[in-house]
Amino acid sequence: MKLLIVGGVAGGASAAARARRLREDAEIIVFERGPDVSFANCGLPYYVGGVIAEREKLLVTTAERLRIRFNLDVRTGSSVESIDRVAKTVRVRDLATGREYNESYDKLILSPGAAPVRPKLPGVELPGILTLRNLEDVDRIKRRVDEGIQRVVLVGGGFIGLELAENFVKRGVATTLIEHNKQLLPPFDPEMTTPIVQTLLAQGVDLQLGESVTGFTRAGNDLIVELKSGTRIHTQLVVLGIGVSPENKLALESGLETGVRGGIRVDAHQRTSDSDIFAAGDAVEIRDAISGNPFQVPLAGPANRQGRIAADNACGRDSRYRGTQGTAILGVFDQTAAMTGASEKALKKAGRPFRKIYVHPAQHAGYYPGAKPMALKVLFDPENGRILGAQAVGSDGVDKRIDVIAVAIQAGMTVFDMEEMELAYAPQYGSAKDPINMAGFVASGILRGDHPQIDLESVMHVAAEPRPYLIDVRTPQEFSAGAIPGAMNLPVDELRKRLHEIPRDRHLAVYCQVGQRGYLATRILIQNGFSVANIGGGYKTYKLFYPNE
Amino acid sequence: MKLLIVGGVAGGASAAARARRLREDAEIIVFERGPDVSFANCGLPYYVGGVIAEREKLLVTTAERLRIRFNLDVRTGSSVESIDRVAKTVRVRDLATGREYNESYDKLILSPGAAPVRPKLPGVELPGILTLRNLEDVDRIKRRVDEGIQRVVLVGGGFIGLELAENFVKRGVATTLIEHNKQLLPPFDPEMTTPIVQTLLAQGVDLQLGESVTGFTRAGNDLIVELKSGTRIHTQLVVLGIGVSPENKLALESGLETGVRGGIRVDAHQRTSDSDIFAAGDAVEIRDAISGNPFQVPLAGPANRQGRIAADNACGRDSRYRGTQGTAILGVFDQTAAMTGASEKALKKAGRPFRKIYVHPAQHAGYYPGAKPMALKVLFDPENGRILGAQAVGSDGVDKRIDVIAVAIQAGMTVFDMEEMELAYAPQYGSAKDPINMAGFVASGILRGDHPQIDLESVMHVAAEPRPYLIDVRTPQEFSAGAIPGAMNLPVDELRKRLHEIPRDRHLAVYCQVGQRGYLATRILIQNGFSVANIGGGYKTYKLFYPNE
Repeated sequence: MKLLIVGGVAGGASAAARARRLREDAEIIVFERGPDVSFANCGLPYYVGGVIAEREKLLVTTAERLRIRFNLDVRTGSSVESIDRVAKTVRVRDLATGREYNESYDKLILSPGAAPVRPKLPGVELPGILTLRNLEDVDRIKRRVDEGIQRVVLVGGGFIGLELAENFVKRGVATTLIEHNKQLLPPFDPEMTTPIVQTLLAQGVDLQLGESVTGFTRAGNDLIVELKSGTRIHTQLVVLGIGVSPENKLALESGLETGVRGGIRVDAHQRTSDSDIFAAGDAVEIRDAISGNPFQVPLAGPANRQGRIAADNACGRDSRYRGTQGTAILGVFDQTAAMTGASEKALKKAGRPFRKIYVHPAQHAGYYPGAKPMALKVLFDPENGRILGAQAVGSDGVDKRIDVIAVAIQAGMTVFDMEEMELAYAPQYGSAKDPINMAGFVASGILRGDHPQIDLESVMHVAAEPRPYLIDVRTPQEFSAGAIPGAMNLPVDELRKRLHEIPRDRHLAVYCQVGQRGYLATRILIQNGFSVANIGGGYKTYKLFYPNE
Repeated sequence: MKLLIVGGVAGGASAAARARRLREDAEIIVFERGPDVSFANCGLPYYVGGVIAEREKLLVTTAERLRIRFNLDVRTGSSVESIDRVAKTVRVRDLATGREYNESYDKLILSPGAAPVRPKLPGVELPGILTLRNLEDVDRIKRRVDEGIQRVVLVGGGFIGLELAENFVKRGVATTLIEHNKQLLPPFDPEMTTPIVQTLLAQGVDLQLGESVTGFTRAGNDLIVELKSGTRIHTQLVVLGIGVSPENKLALESGLETGVRGGIRVDAHQRTSDSDIFAAGDAVEIRDAISGNPFQVPLAGPANRQGRIAADNACGRDSRYRGTQGTAILGVFDQTAAMTGASEKALKKAGRPFRKIYVHPAQHAGYYPGAKPMALKVLFDPENGRILGAQAVGSDGVDKRIDVIAVAIQAGMTVFDMEEMELAYAPQYGSAKDPINMAGFVASGILRGDHPQIDLESVMHVAAEPRPYLIDVRTPQEFSAGAIPGAMNLPVDELRKRLHEIPRDRHLAVYCQVGQRGYLATRILIQNGFSVANIGGGYKTYKLFYPNE
């Protein structure tokens, strides 16, 4: 068996190692256009910031090591230019010498990755306007920082943009971040990004949301970034992080099926429309688990798994990729934001019915030092309670809760299961009622009808008259420090004695700081004959939606 | 409805709050023998060490707050002395005044907890021999430390003993820990406790495993602890942490069914043998999920959940407790040990077939600073791969992986599911191939027959002749720093060229440092016609079993 693999980073390297383990006798050739195989893509921003001090750390493995350990024929600096699917050969160009040659295959795995998008803007090809994909890119960026540049403009508020922002700030470079959407981190729901916005601002990042770049010009040694608003920003370096597009040239030109977003189309075996050609990684089209719509997910975990499965099937095994649920995480300064499954945005777009809850628990017992709150949002099926997605933002312990929910989604579990989950508790690690359990209680309470909840949007977007009568059940101190406009204050601890002050002819909405006292107030009021719902997640959720009010 | 609750800590307090939310009209009385309700049991050791600086932090809530917020009649200092199940009354003794009175009930919930065991040893009642259960206990212990004692003896190497050891060391008190078993932390398998033993020794704890106390005597202001070995230890304070026994006096005397280990027997509704009496928390008997045998699990999470479910059912709802899977965690110095589900010991005892794997991954990407290895052991069904239990020891990220596996066990997932789990990856938080995935790969490889593995015990406990021919596939440097006795060294990178050096008439066992190179070596050898198995978890696992060789 002769197996060719195009691309030697995450998907390609995984495929090559897996294929060798399965087939000691196979001839396996890996073509990598760049000089390095299997480098630490996700570590690049941290090398700019000096968090990762040694460049060698970024080399997960080397071509030499792959050759020796896995008996692979690794050809770096080698670009696969075309595929002849009838003759079953590829045309390879050695970039150093220019020599071209054909190489035949029995099976072919494509893992070419995705390339950073360079928008067609005036001046975008000026020197000093960089992207970040590989070690050569990071060398260029780091060299500029080491030379002592004072100012950088980052275009794009996605994962890479934010990771770079942190690392530029750590190096003392004044950082402007421009994002054309009104929110950072497009996969997240907007309110869940509020703490990240606040952190970036607190760290001195000049954050420009809802602003676009219209072009670049040169001014001496500086660059000028021109914005839609008319603002012109003088800077010394621009890094574009506005997304990636699948490297599909080979696939397109050889007539393999691709999707509307350009990804190479594969089946569950990672097989393309040609039964001898497989594909894995960022170049591949994914199906959204909720909507079934095609999309692209440039994530290392899925790329590795797809590489393994492509190799399995190329070697004659029947293994299947289970799909990508979009589990992702970002660390930026002291904040962590993570998500898994569907967002509210995605569910709405797909027209999929859902309910949602917010809780604001600490990552561990409040009585143990270092407890810090997180905001956790869970989306679930309104009929059967099946978990559809979750997002969390906070500091420690966010990754743990999202991983737990990621597995629960994979298992098809419900919010009722979340109530009962038996998680590890000691005061440094969690709570006897873990954030996961708390979210389960709140969500299950809605579905059981014990705990009528109203989403904040249904209160805020409603005109004065049909709007529910708002009761803030926190203490007067909390109330006077900030409350939802139009609310009356009636602390939960006085509620039973002051029921006569509450109108019986109005629908009520109560809220507290995080939802817990509001829940008790709701129970008291229901059992006293009022029509009432609790505003899920309380005032803290309100402040996620309306941070500046 | 009139509901009485005996005990106002974890299970009792949860039951009371839940009952009030369900039944605003119910009369609910909580009897607590001690002066405090709902204190932070699990935080007590950290108050001794000063990690938790303020005593008030230990009060999760107060009787006053429960009265006001939940409209509960909370009676502290009130001991329930007996139950008249026919008349449906309890006899209550006010401990301050000595007054006794009857209180009637419609439903009764027992949550009396468990009391520390005081072994019947000569001198065990001497002053200065303390236990740790509540705030009065911790005050006594902390007072002695604040007075400047120099030496303490802790009896019992369970969770509380180890947490206390850390906190005494932090206070500068020379600490001796005596455990009559040969291992610490009885719920764990012995090899998984090795890093904890090493940490305690490194921190200067005088650790005496396999040693028992035979009695205590007084010597001036000091105490003398007499050991079975004949050693006599002079000390200033003794804390007994040798386990707890369920407070079952009320249940026994009123004729409620109890189990062989003394726990109050309940059904899935937390209902005792009397249909109007429920029980929750440490006093209740649990069924082991694997063996079905009764046991006791004094854990706060299950106590809280049981309290809620007891209240549900006392209020006429049908909710069910799903059982306790024994998820537990310990932090001691910089180490974390955690487990969920069945241990190997428990599976063997129950005669349940299983396979096991060990992996030693870092908690996050190796290229990001701060990566530290953990040891992760997973037990699974040899037929269908269903996960039966897991244990991990290391530093950061141990809690996350055990929580993920705890949920996977609850969902009935398999090691094949672990391979595919899509967990959150950025280099600070995990790896593109997470420790969970790695464990899944190794375990699934065994079940698919790709990766024949042999447990270390099957190598070590076998006489020279039928013992497999041992090959260490690490580098000569690693080999010379320590290897399994009798192994030959043949680095994996030279294996393909040196196959002729390996006997073809022997069964082979290969190993590396953690199992990964051993896996590749196994694949190479199998495909070259050898009979071979990889020693799971490699040399690092060997060092867990044989730390001193």
